[in-house]
Amino acid sequence: MFDYQVDPQKIEKESFRQIRLLTDLGDLSPAQQQVVMRIVHSVGIPEVASEVRFSEDACNSGMKALAAGKPILCDVEMVKQGITKRMIELPPLCFLNDPVVARLAKQHAETRSMAALELWREHLSESVVVIGNAPTALFRLLEMIAQGADKPALIIGMPVGFVGAAESKQALWDVHRQLGVECITLLGRQGGSAVSAASCNALLRCNHGEWY
Amino acid sequence: MFDYQVDPQKIEKESFRQIRLLTDLGDLSPAQQQVVMRIVHSVGIPEVASEVRFSEDACNSGMKALAAGKPILCDVEMVKQGITKRMIELPPLCFLNDPVVARLAKQHAETRSMAALELWREHLSESVVVIGNAPTALFRLLEMIAQGADKPALIIGMPVGFVGAAESKQALWDVHRQLGVECITLLGRQGGSAVSAASCNALLRCNHGEWY
Repeated sequence: MFDYQVDPQKIEKESFRQIRLLTDLGDLSPAQQQVVMRIVHSVGIPEVASEVRFSEDACNSGMKALAAGKPILCDVEMVKQGITKRMIELPPLCFLNDPVVARLAKQHAETRSMAALELWREHLSESVVVIGNAPTALFRLLEMIAQGADKPALIIGMPVGFVGAAESKQALWDVHRQLGVECITLLGRQGGSAVSAASCNALLRCNHGEWY
Repeated sequence: MFDYQVDPQKIEKESFRQIRLLTDLGDLSPAQQQVVMRIVHSVGIPEVASEVRFSEDACNSGMKALAAGKPILCDVEMVKQGITKRMIELPPLCFLNDPVVARLAKQHAETRSMAALELWREHLSESVVVIGNAPTALFRLLEMIAQGADKPALIIGMPVGFVGAAESKQALWDVHRQLGVECITLLGRQGGSAVSAASCNALLRCNHGEWY
């Protein structure tokens, strides 16, 4: 009835062939290229490439932390679900649905996403943070680090939306050097669970020798 | 350090105020407007509105099935994770990681996503299908229905990507009337777990009287 490719390896290979063809990868490093291509793959829009930003040592720092099995901290369950299971030993952490978080959020009249950061505190050191949804989580993380909290090895900060998303990512990009943290971000309103998880997955794949 | 909105109700209200302002909702019905606004909310791009397509009775048929607690069938775990838990009684179904599916996929040299459809068969009647990832799952579903499988009440078909995604959604749109199925789709390469889950969530919210 329809003529379509059913072989998963062929689909993946052809996808990344097209993505490489359609995407301006400029003078990105090999690891940065993998991240950008996975981001494009997850949203279907080659043009997003121009909005991706990497701090100087972001990929290297993230890959080292992932290789060492450091915690992966996710703002929402969809991000956690999006991290490629076969490439990690311990499940990523997400505290959004912890009853403590609901109580804290209510108490402070703030989002659960930012209240959850209190439970991140003891896991932050050398972690890989993946924020795909909540601007408030990203803002709060930056505040915590500025106030002396342990530093993640990498912040993948890609909340999506209309209120605070673009602003939180611009803030991350503006202050990362001053705070001494590595980051990957996607400026503007676009972002989400899929792009942020895809960025982390790209680094995991680099560690596993799977390059496209 | 930063000035940002932390009240979740205010964030949501302001988000949808901006989305309504920025999005061309044309002559969409109230329920269709909710779906389009949730799609825009999930990707951060008002312009996607022009690529959303609804079959004639799509929203009504989907809302009725959801209100009756019919199965929600998801192609991947991220879609399942994205369905708003507080609005459903039974968890959505996703068979992608079932060992039977891995075996079937290997045997037929096809994607696990399409092999999983064999396990959907007994749940299809009056279900709400939410496909956010795999073009092969959408193609296979259309083939199964053409061959006489039970019909879902609604197909939300929004796979993302470069190989087969746009084609599978165009196929859904082209044959839905002939097959006698209701559908919501997002033409072109864009799509994903978030937009497809958001579309289903919009209908759940309509049923719960939460209109933006």
